[in-house]
Amino acid sequence: MKTLDDIVGVPFKVLDDGFVRVIDYMGSDEAVVQAARISYGKGTKRIREDRGLIRYLMRHGHTTPFEMCEIKFHVRAPMDCWRQWIRHRTANVNEYSTRYSEAIDSAQKTDPDAWRKQTSTNKQGSEDCIDSKIGGELSSRENRLHKLSREIYEERLRFGVSREQARKDLPLSTYTEAYWKIDLHNLLHFLTLRMDLHAQSEIRSYANAIGNKIVSKWCPLTWEAFNDYYLYALKLSRLDTEIIRELITGNINDAKKIAITYGLLSESGESSKRSRELKELERKLATLGILVPWT
Amino acid sequence: MKTLDDIVGVPFKVLDDGFVRVIDYMGSDEAVVQAARISYGKGTKRIREDRGLIRYLMRHGHTTPFEMCEIKFHVRAPMDCWRQWIRHRTANVNEYSTRYSEAIDSAQKTDPDAWRKQTSTNKQGSEDCIDSKIGGELSSRENRLHKLSREIYEERLRFGVSREQARKDLPLSTYTEAYWKIDLHNLLHFLTLRMDLHAQSEIRSYANAIGNKIVSKWCPLTWEAFNDYYLYALKLSRLDTEIIRELITGNINDAKKIAITYGLLSESGESSKRSRELKELERKLATLGILVPWT
Amino acid sequence: MKTLDDIVGVPFKVLDDGFVRVIDYMGSDEAVVQAARISYGKGTKRIREDRGLIRYLMRHGHTTPFEMCEIKFHVRAPMDCWRQWIRHRTANVNEYSTRYSEAIDSAQKTDPDAWRKQTSTNKQGSEDCIDSKIGGELSSRENRLHKLSREIYEERLRFGVSREQARKDLPLSTYTEAYWKIDLHNLLHFLTLRMDLHAQSEIRSYANAIGNKIVSKWCPLTWEAFNDYYLYALKLSRLDTEIIRELITGNINDAKKIAITYGLLSESGESSKRSRELKELERKLATLGILVPWT
Amino acid sequence: MKTLDDIVGVPFKVLDDGFVRVIDYMGSDEAVVQAARISYGKGTKRIREDRGLIRYLMRHGHTTPFEMCEIKFHVRAPMDCWRQWIRHRTANVNEYSTRYSEAIDSAQKTDPDAWRKQTSTNKQGSEDCIDSKIGGELSSRENRLHKLSREIYEERLRFGVSREQARKDLPLSTYTEAYWKIDLHNLLHFLTLRMDLHAQSEIRSYANAIGNKIVSKWCPLTWEAFNDYYLYALKLSRLDTEIIRELITGNINDAKKIAITYGLLSESGESSKRSRELKELERKLATLGILVPWT
Repeated sequence: MKTLDDIVGVPFKVLDDGFVRVIDYMGSDEAVVQAARISYGKGTKRIREDRGLIRYLMRHGHTTPFEMCEIKFHVRAPMDCWRQWIRHRTANVNEYSTRYSEAIDSAQKTDPDAWRKQTSTNKQGSEDCIDSKIGGELSSRENRLHKLSREIYEERLRFGVSREQARKDLPLSTYTEAYWKIDLHNLLHFLTLRMDLHAQSEIRSYANAIGNKIVSKWCPLTWEAFNDYYLYALKLSRLDTEIIRELITGNINDAKKIAITYGLLSESGESSKRSRELKELERKLATLGILVPWT
Repeated sequence: MKTLDDIVGVPFKVLDDGFVRVIDYMGSDEAVVQAARISYGKGTKRIREDRGLIRYLMRHGHTTPFEMCEIKFHVRAPMDCWRQWIRHRTANVNEYSTRYSEAIDSAQKTDPDAWRKQTSTNKQGSEDCIDSKIGGELSSRENRLHKLSREIYEERLRFGVSREQARKDLPLSTYTEAYWKIDLHNLLHFLTLRMDLHAQSEIRSYANAIGNKIVSKWCPLTWEAFNDYYLYALKLSRLDTEIIRELITGNINDAKKIAITYGLLSESGESSKRSRELKELERKLATLGILVPWT
Repeated sequence: MKTLDDIVGVPFKVLDDGFVRVIDYMGSDEAVVQAARISYGKGTKRIREDRGLIRYLMRHGHTTPFEMCEIKFHVRAPMDCWRQWIRHRTANVNEYSTRYSEAIDSAQKTDPDAWRKQTSTNKQGSEDCIDSKIGGELSSRENRLHKLSREIYEERLRFGVSREQARKDLPLSTYTEAYWKIDLHNLLHFLTLRMDLHAQSEIRSYANAIGNKIVSKWCPLTWEAFNDYYLYALKLSRLDTEIIRELITGNINDAKKIAITYGLLSESGESSKRSRELKELERKLATLGILVPWT
Repeated sequence: MKTLDDIVGVPFKVLDDGFVRVIDYMGSDEAVVQAARISYGKGTKRIREDRGLIRYLMRHGHTTPFEMCEIKFHVRAPMDCWRQWIRHRTANVNEYSTRYSEAIDSAQKTDPDAWRKQTSTNKQGSEDCIDSKIGGELSSRENRLHKLSREIYEERLRFGVSREQARKDLPLSTYTEAYWKIDLHNLLHFLTLRMDLHAQSEIRSYANAIGNKIVSKWCPLTWEAFNDYYLYALKLSRLDTEIIRELITGNINDAKKIAITYGLLSESGESSKRSRELKELERKLATLGILVPWT
């Protein structure tokens, strides 16, 4: 397996014309351990080996040792995607400036079979795609708009309009670039949110590249622990816990009563169609191998 | 039930000479809802009522609407406790300055029956107490030290030593005061960490007062959701989930095999005495009403 | 003069279709004073009156007491402007989501006489405007682009494309809305940067409205001090100071020598055309009523 | 001159038993330039050389490129000093924990000739020292207190008291250790405040070591610019500027009138004894070689 040093500077392609690559970094799994040991002192030095200590820290939310590692990326992403990215406030950022320089001449294009449908159940997600014949039409309209936007942008520059104003009607799909520097703890938090299935497909692609191709190599022990305790963890609410305990101990009626009390089931014990929380519970039951007793 | 306005300015006593009280606040459950609705737009306006929306936000980690509420406390706490408090970096702080003013003439005292034992199992906690006869001796020694420290402090001031230097040997138990201002999201994060049983008893007392007596009145819907989805939630790791699924579906041997693979049980299937992770799993099994198959 | 309470909720119009209005606030000049007094203790209580104390804090960079005030705005601004706004990381934000709701049907329009020229001297600024006949042509092209973009956006929605993807080619000039909450210290920092003449005209309009129409009413003593010590302050570098001292004491040749040493003047004592630092110094000399000796 | 790599790991002694040393770092002057160039784009690439660009950034408050460098220190300092240090919220920290480990057996000692006097003019500073005969007495009392505190601390541990509670009466002068990681921009802000003559002598010693011995080697161009534009800059308020202009152009009476209007001079034109602002102005006049006309 390659180490991080093998891929410093190497761009990982994302979307049609984007990328993410490591520029520099500081620390690794060992720096996490070193920091934890100053906190936990000599007492812990002997007993715990590195892997166990990192897993302990991750499991119990001792986050400060993970802040001792720092990484700097060079990112190229559509502005629309960058708008979401920049919402994470704990990073250091220098973005390509279209006040000082001409805007990058590239906008994210959508293939005929890549126009995602609005789903009714989950307001956020968009999984299935539009029929590619219609999609083809949408893509060609997109293409026309990109051309016109760029034409108008360059026209303004030719007439001497300032760059800061000429850019005002560029499409959100226009690519931008940035240096983005962040510590490991806050990077993992970013990944928790942006590798999630509810995150928008575009930013998820960047997050997956960062997580699976970069962090996994940079801090393999931390990455493993993060997977076990965050990415693949199952969070049971107080309510979930109560219902599952009744189901496990065979008290199906009590389980139903609790679900009714909390408004997950209707008074007659039927599943409340609108309840997202009920659906989430049902998915958790499936994961744990428990039969859903109310359908 | 009293509302928050009834308790603005009212000090809640904590420890022997500390307190916490609300000085001012901005927003409430409604401000959370209002902020969520600008994000989620008109679509959500009709369907979801306030309580459901707040619970949805809390359950899915949509934290920004909770940042729209702000609260300012006046706190009096021992410096040793304040040292932990101030580690939370997302708050605004003005602390009583012993450079400009004479140090507060009060130090936290320990009663004869309140000297907590060092526990061996949990390095952090300290539950049981020392025999109160020995405790009495310790308390009287403490008293002597407090007196000498103060005497020496005042002696220095009398000889004209600067306050900033005179204070250098005050005991960590000396009380200090501060204004502490924080948004609701970050306050809940503080409470998650400091109401936890692993937090030190002293700061836990402050956190409990803030949570149970203040936030519960300030934003009751948020508080309820926070209890259900954070304080009383049960987090299952990937490993926990796999083992529990096998146990529920009756595959006890498979469950054991997984536990052995991950190093929780010894090769022979016996419980590994040193494994904290195993003990944590056993507590989760108990909570869910599942028999521990390996003891 | 109106107080802040008179204008809570009242939108101040900015640009052609934007606004900024106060939704809620906490604290005022008195809260700054109250916080300072807990830090500075009893000693200061008697001597200093509020205004003097606030001016002292501002002059000496004692910033924490200003963090005790908090204000929440409702903002409507073009996305291009918001992209700059959001770079200030110390605020709480909830932005209108075009994933959940249809994008606002409004884009910032430019009048024929409002197309600013790119200046050659100052890379950032854009002061003079393009001839309005050409400007008229640019505005009508802009109009056509806005129409086409919106048409294509709505077309996508009609064909069932997800909102999160349909928005990808909206122009940066599209209006968005947000709640923006920030403490007074960080707000003043924002104003220092965004009321500055080097800030882009659009965001400067918002900053001016916030500063002159809102903060001036909210915390008038703080606002006055901020004007005296920040907005209208003159910062002299080590080099400026050395040169000015020589000029004041009549040593014009020594002043020139220093300027040559630091590379502001050429070896022959003539002004270096490319030097921005020299031009900045000359402006400072003018402000102080000192004749520039090298032109 | 040594470079930073020569001193990584080397402790610089501070106070009687403290130190600061670099553990790791990322970036340097070149990283600042690299980040600025992505923002300022190709246009700037040709014209400006590195030094000029860094000076331009520093002079105009373009702070984000300086955030691209990161440094990690290992610090040993008295808790009283650390209390001030930790108020800087933009750093990552792991401190030695006296919950997990026995407290460090060392407290900052004060030599007989090092007891600083409380000054009346400047509430904060403490320059002159107490007569060393009295100082000797104070030092021996200090010594006694340190011994008793430690004795009582160890006694508690012997009786089985938990470490987290046993430490409660340690003197503030007890040494602690920490890893402290921060970006260059925020480090310079820390140095601005803590190298200042108003900062307490103890923390100033650490700041001076960090600035003069470490940052000067790490990023020499940035350090030079920071000295010229921050450490040795002279800030003139609106009021200062108006008065100085009148003095330079020979209108002494107008200068006095302005000073009277703003309350710096009494109605009769005499210096107002209590005015700190007047004294600050007088120091600025001296620096610029201008005679004070009112004394």
